[in-house]
Amino acid sequence: MDAVLRRRGLMLVLSSPSGAGKTTIARRMLKDDANLSMSVSATTRSKRPGEVSGVDYHFVDKTDFNLMLNRGELLEHARVFSNYYGTPRGPVEKALSSGRDMLFDIDWQGTQQLREAAREDLVSVFILPPSTRALEERLAKRAQDPPEVVAERMSKAADEMSHWPEYDYVIVNADLEASVHQVKAILTAERARRDRLVGLGEFVRGLRAGH
Amino acid sequence: MDAVLRRRGLMLVLSSPSGAGKTTIARRMLKDDANLSMSVSATTRSKRPGEVSGVDYHFVDKTDFNLMLNRGELLEHARVFSNYYGTPRGPVEKALSSGRDMLFDIDWQGTQQLREAAREDLVSVFILPPSTRALEERLAKRAQDPPEVVAERMSKAADEMSHWPEYDYVIVNADLEASVHQVKAILTAERARRDRLVGLGEFVRGLRAGH
Repeated sequence: MDAVLRRRGLMLVLSSPSGAGKTTIARRMLKDDANLSMSVSATTRSKRPGEVSGVDYHFVDKTDFNLMLNRGELLEHARVFSNYYGTPRGPVEKALSSGRDMLFDIDWQGTQQLREAAREDLVSVFILPPSTRALEERLAKRAQDPPEVVAERMSKAADEMSHWPEYDYVIVNADLEASVHQVKAILTAERARRDRLVGLGEFVRGLRAGH
Repeated sequence: MDAVLRRRGLMLVLSSPSGAGKTTIARRMLKDDANLSMSVSATTRSKRPGEVSGVDYHFVDKTDFNLMLNRGELLEHARVFSNYYGTPRGPVEKALSSGRDMLFDIDWQGTQQLREAAREDLVSVFILPPSTRALEERLAKRAQDPPEVVAERMSKAADEMSHWPEYDYVIVNADLEASVHQVKAILTAERARRDRLVGLGEFVRGLRAGH
């Protein structure tokens, strides 16, 4: 199909409450799909141990962040706790126009803004935990976070979950392999959507004319 | 996920010009997916060698066909050459309400009528041959058809192909395995669409309340 038809890239958004397994699913998608790249956000929060600038985030100070925002260089931005996060517009537009797909690990606020900025390019997936207990267990495993951050995150998780009706797809992550399979299928299916394919009219005219 | 959420079944329509490989893809889907059943059409055309009544078609005479039509028992119907084809409504509604998915091997006329009758349940896939040559070669292999039927079918193929813009998904069947993979992905993805899932609101309220 790639030899015959071109298509515009799509923006695959994964959202979920913290601890539902979204980041693990995102990593697997990136590992297994050569046409998918992670959108690297800019953030004003400090770098955590093990994080790499330009890979995990673009770490910027608040002055630079405001400069990007005021220049219209961010597709979406959000404040989470006392930090700012945003998606640089340039790399996304470049990828999409060349048929590459971009993966976004953002919350409901960012997704709403992406939807306003680029509804036709957006495919949004909401990942839910199978139970509150599963969510709590996964959050408790993040030993690096102090208890008050965990508690704040549980409260934020409840808030985040209320936004499931805004998403195209919903996956209950009871089994990681099954969930990865579902997200891969969503990506494969959305790539075959008629309205993403470029040059179909010309191709079919050729078929009908006997080429 | 099945343990947590119910969903309404969907109607997966495969359409293509004759000879594009649709029937082979449909057979593979049915073989590999236990939750998918073929919708068996009623037809007034005569049974071909090897066909089984009630499996390939319900073979009926024109009087019975008109009776079903006038009673509103057909979801869609069409005349192809001098024969009539139609989809009995009862088995489809029963399957969908119990969460089973139905596969339809019908042309653009039937798809238009299904879309009018049940737009929200419909997932439509159009399958194109990679080239006119590939189409001609596949049609020529059907030794049981006389040359004038082959010629009429090539003309009908050109007509059928003009309806690709009415479908949700378009697949160019250059490689059978790749095409089967794509149709399976479409089915898996559509099953995870938020608007097909029943009881999500209740499930998320339970999660947020700490159940």
